[in-house]
Amino acid sequence: TRSINLAVVPGDGIGQEVVAQGLKVLNAVLPQDVKLETKEFDFGAKRYHATGETLTDADVQALKQHDAILLGAIGDPSVPSGVLERGFLLKLRFLFDHHVNLRPSKLLPGVATPLKGQPEIDFVVVREGTEGPYTGNGGSIRTGTPHEVATEVSVNTAFGVERVVRDAFARAQARPRKKLTLVHKNNVLTHAGHLWTNIFNKVAAEFPDVTTDYLHVDAATIFLVTQPERFDVIVTDNLFGDIITDLAAAVSGGIGVAASGNINPSGEFPSMFEPVHGSAPDIAGQGKADPTAAVLSVALLLRHLGYEAEAARIEEAVSADLAERGDTPRATSEIGDALAVRVAS
Amino acid sequence: TRSINLAVVPGDGIGQEVVAQGLKVLNAVLPQDVKLETKEFDFGAKRYHATGETLTDADVQALKQHDAILLGAIGDPSVPSGVLERGFLLKLRFLFDHHVNLRPSKLLPGVATPLKGQPEIDFVVVREGTEGPYTGNGGSIRTGTPHEVATEVSVNTAFGVERVVRDAFARAQARPRKKLTLVHKNNVLTHAGHLWTNIFNKVAAEFPDVTTDYLHVDAATIFLVTQPERFDVIVTDNLFGDIITDLAAAVSGGIGVAASGNINPSGEFPSMFEPVHGSAPDIAGQGKADPTAAVLSVALLLRHLGYEAEAARIEEAVSADLAERGDTPRATSEIGDALAVRVAS
Ligand SMILES: CC(C)[C@H](C(=O)O)[C@@H](O)C(=O)O
Ligand SMILES: CC(C)[C@H](C(=O)O)[C@@H](O)C(=O)O
Repeated sequence: TRSINLAVVPGDGIGQEVVAQGLKVLNAVLPQDVKLETKEFDFGAKRYHATGETLTDADVQALKQHDAILLGAIGDPSVPSGVLERGFLLKLRFLFDHHVNLRPSKLLPGVATPLKGQPEIDFVVVREGTEGPYTGNGGSIRTGTPHEVATEVSVNTAFGVERVVRDAFARAQARPRKKLTLVHKNNVLTHAGHLWTNIFNKVAAEFPDVTTDYLHVDAATIFLVTQPERFDVIVTDNLFGDIITDLAAAVSGGIGVAASGNINPSGEFPSMFEPVHGSAPDIAGQGKADPTAAVLSVALLLRHLGYEAEAARIEEAVSADLAERGDTPRATSEIGDALAVRVAS
Repeated sequence: TRSINLAVVPGDGIGQEVVAQGLKVLNAVLPQDVKLETKEFDFGAKRYHATGETLTDADVQALKQHDAILLGAIGDPSVPSGVLERGFLLKLRFLFDHHVNLRPSKLLPGVATPLKGQPEIDFVVVREGTEGPYTGNGGSIRTGTPHEVATEVSVNTAFGVERVVRDAFARAQARPRKKLTLVHKNNVLTHAGHLWTNIFNKVAAEFPDVTTDYLHVDAATIFLVTQPERFDVIVTDNLFGDIITDLAAAVSGGIGVAASGNINPSGEFPSMFEPVHGSAPDIAGQGKADPTAAVLSVALLLRHLGYEAEAARIEEAVSADLAERGDTPRATSEIGDALAVRVAS
């Protein structure tokens, strides 16, 4: 019998509620012969306040024993900005070498977009996940004085850029339109920009059937609202990817439906799947958060583990549910129930 | 008699065409007693190819003799990315200490937006112009090899942040809604982020009548398309400002109408005014570029030099023109003529 050994991190705020629905749908979609084992971890604000810990060495060892991680959301206003982000989420992305941060954007029929004319949106952003301005490489001197100088260093390596660019080319080649856009700011960030651009052009030669394109990040935000249909696959740096995927989510149905995967393609470490949204403390505990993004993150997780048919079933269930979703608000668990019924049938 | 001693840099591509219309409207709006002297400079791709120069010390000295600079656009595909940007535009922003990069966004009646429901958009972005990731502080080792490491250093100083934050608070205080939003990414870029946040909070205490707000840059892009009416004044770092002002332009009428000022508030060096759009080589020389952004940049220039009534006349003329603009495309010079007639009457 096959088995999935899953680490579950509900986290803070609505993370708890949406992860519960993700697991419900996961249980419903898995064939009988797949044995699902889950272990819940208590990372997040509560544990931080109680113990001062965000992620210990023992935690990391424990997480490593799993095939994948399902994360709700980490973050709470009671914790200073950056502590949980750097101490848990980014720490795991770095330690488990999640260099492919995968964020699909698809505007499904019946789903509202702030854009006029219901454009055809179906692209995927491959965001680098372990380099760039996210390395925590920086500091400050004369902190808190009128003479403070604070720096942030974006670190980019040929090794790190090439592997994610290659991954993106392969993804583009596997899609019908076979188009890959590099997004950077190589006219200002010339050192990092030239590294990205040179590697992109070098790898492009190995994928002659993939059409390539370059956009500065500022111009990319314009096209995301005026011509989102022009995008197929986008590859970009960690920070630009962070920014454009929130915008991409906003135009293609909102962060209520945006899923993501922090992927370690070699499988050396477990990959981690999470909704793009945060912990939304303002609506937490009210049972009204949309669990769709968490459920779609479960689909990405299943695809990563080789359960393609099950992943597709979840995505079809979500499509059907969204198409039929009226304007009446439904509770978090109602949506989860509806999706569980759909994937099971 | 009063006088304006203006340096004019048409630059590349459509820069030439739109600046001509800006000057046409400037001439039409100025009262008889103001003596306008203009001197044209040939910076841009053509000069670079002919001489290898982007901006010499002598050029800088010559520009310094002027009250202000009107710039069209610099940039051409024949020049490697970054050469003209770093060698001319950014060089001037740094040398002339243009630390307030002012970018208003207003969706005027009758103007098309990609957003549904014609939202009320009227905000201004105060983008820091002389620090952050734009300093050119970075480099690469083992360049071009599989072991290349390329860095970009964002440099942020208390001095540089405080002056722009203070400027933004003063602008917010002078507007009816009196609201200022800080946009950064202080949960990841913790060093620079804390510097910005601490200074923002410190200065806020001196402006108790200004409502303040903080957004991560990724969340800000969401609100720019889902709730742009929530913004009044935004203050942000150089790179985040670059990104969100292109998006802001896209939702509030397009880059055809987005103006900007690179301002040295002390007046020690001339400020520079330019449309947000680039040189658009694909449509250059065809007389079809929209000169509205260049004309609105002239309005910002006049306001900076103390000609408030004339600035307002230009803005009213543009409003009226846009409101009556049908779907028939008009030539660059036709639009310029129409605006010149309106401001003169
Ligand atoms: C919470 C934050 C650290 C994170 C990021 O910036 O990567 C989030 O915005 C995301 O996109 O996953
Ligand atoms: C051309 C480029 C260097 C410039 C910038 O990034 O500042 C432009 O995008 C702008 O916004 O003025």
